[in-house]
Amino acid sequence: MAASDFTNRLTAVATETEALLDRLLDGAVLPGETARPLRLLEAMRWSALGSGKRLRPFLVVETAALFGAARDGALLAGCALELLHCYSLVHDDLPAMDNDDLRRGRPTVHRAFDEATAILAGDTLQTLAFDIMARDEVHGEPRVRIALVRELARAAGLGGMAGGQMLDLSAEGRFETKRALTEPEIVTLQAMKTGALIRFACNAGAILGQAGAPSRASIERYGAAIGQAFQIADDLLDVEGDSAQLGKAAGKDVAAGKATLVAVLSIAGARARLDHLIAEADAALAPFGAKADTLRATARFIAERQS
Amino acid sequence: MAASDFTNRLTAVATETEALLDRLLDGAVLPGETARPLRLLEAMRWSALGSGKRLRPFLVVETAALFGAARDGALLAGCALELLHCYSLVHDDLPAMDNDDLRRGRPTVHRAFDEATAILAGDTLQTLAFDIMARDEVHGEPRVRIALVRELARAAGLGGMAGGQMLDLSAEGRFETKRALTEPEIVTLQAMKTGALIRFACNAGAILGQAGAPSRASIERYGAAIGQAFQIADDLLDVEGDSAQLGKAAGKDVAAGKATLVAVLSIAGARARLDHLIAEADAALAPFGAKADTLRATARFIAERQS
Repeated sequence: MAASDFTNRLTAVATETEALLDRLLDGAVLPGETARPLRLLEAMRWSALGSGKRLRPFLVVETAALFGAARDGALLAGCALELLHCYSLVHDDLPAMDNDDLRRGRPTVHRAFDEATAILAGDTLQTLAFDIMARDEVHGEPRVRIALVRELARAAGLGGMAGGQMLDLSAEGRFETKRALTEPEIVTLQAMKTGALIRFACNAGAILGQAGAPSRASIERYGAAIGQAFQIADDLLDVEGDSAQLGKAAGKDVAAGKATLVAVLSIAGARARLDHLIAEADAALAPFGAKADTLRATARFIAERQS
Repeated sequence: MAASDFTNRLTAVATETEALLDRLLDGAVLPGETARPLRLLEAMRWSALGSGKRLRPFLVVETAALFGAARDGALLAGCALELLHCYSLVHDDLPAMDNDDLRRGRPTVHRAFDEATAILAGDTLQTLAFDIMARDEVHGEPRVRIALVRELARAAGLGGMAGGQMLDLSAEGRFETKRALTEPEIVTLQAMKTGALIRFACNAGAILGQAGAPSRASIERYGAAIGQAFQIADDLLDVEGDSAQLGKAAGKDVAAGKATLVAVLSIAGARARLDHLIAEADAALAPFGAKADTLRATARFIAERQS
């Protein structure tokens, strides 16, 4: 697939995601009889709208397409996932957590609003994610929607994203004596903290398409590879990237002494690992032939992105 | 129903809830291949275990019983709801929110652990609530479980609990010039902040029992009445209660200038409103005859509780 074709597809889904998120977070959707906590809604919109590659919705839409699931439902499921991702960003940026002032080139929610509003906005983005994932429009079969809800909860919870963030804070030496994590510990931490939602994005398309077990296994393998690749690329950008292009401070993870594979493997070793993971992602997609070309291009994009 | 019979029923459900929550939050439930963010799990257990009347699970179990739904599933749904309630307590207690040091007679999560852990514990309690609500064991029909997930999300989100908390913070004058709320504004705020989850608890039993529309409407009316009664009783306890018995500081809401009906209606006026709401709850239950005696006793318990 030509790079420009891939970029067009990615941009198309990002545009559709943005428009759908805008509708989902419209003030008019508040039930008429309730008072209108507009400040909370504005903070949710601040977090969820305006930018972002929308990589997770893209993965849902493209894996759903691979298995012949309807695009509209996949896009809505992708928006639910994106809202859950946004919740995690809002809370991770809080002063008590990573204490970040900038996100995607703009003030973080607690800087643009205040800390209480940011806590509530993150909370409500998570709630809305589950609300949307359960809606009829995602898929006609309740059993498909309930499977999505359960998998999303597992990806986001104690054994996934939130648990990974806890391990990350622990690794900084906040609660116990700081010690360097081993390579397998870092791989596990990252598979939880960032990998779980990316794996879920891929699995969601397979669930929507009611794919069989062998296909599910292939997509799981692909998702695991690109999830790890995503984090290594992120860690490399922190070391080598440009703050303006990133929209956040470069070098911050190194300064915080965050556990990254770049620190353990060196830059060259991390690049080699990245190449290996892209090959692994390609191998996982072999059973699908040319139909999976967009997913192949996505793996490459993840490895080579500059922001 | 004799007061002792009611107390026995309430205590029985509280005991079962405690045991089930303990199992649901057991360290052994973490998937084997993940690292174990035990500090996070401990903080979740600190919040969810050890005390509490378990009024919301009780309402789920008793309304489910009224409609002939299985007790085991209702208890599990009740635990999911209780975990969501616990998340809201952990976050509301945070320094940036209500800044409370005591909850149920013990240090709040951010005092017993730290702020980052408390934010993550709240987040993960919410995730786990949706995880559990979606489980097969709640009800054999996926469409029943998906209805529970959707209703829980609506009760917890922007138009419900979280939106109400935002309105409550606004009413304190944090974001705009403080002004006294009108009585209808206070009623709406409270219907969102605390009423929504109590209404959901009642509705959940009706959903589990696949009750028809007239029964659903009766239970909705009952839930709305006891939800409002619960908050008025809470506000009266803040004014008249004893800190030791409450397990938290009395007089705190008055000191913070919180919007309460006691402030608007006076103590006598609030007591009269409480009596009116209990009569309203009784009237809503009329179609069910003696089968609803436990729910009648629950309304009385809510009005007369001392903690």
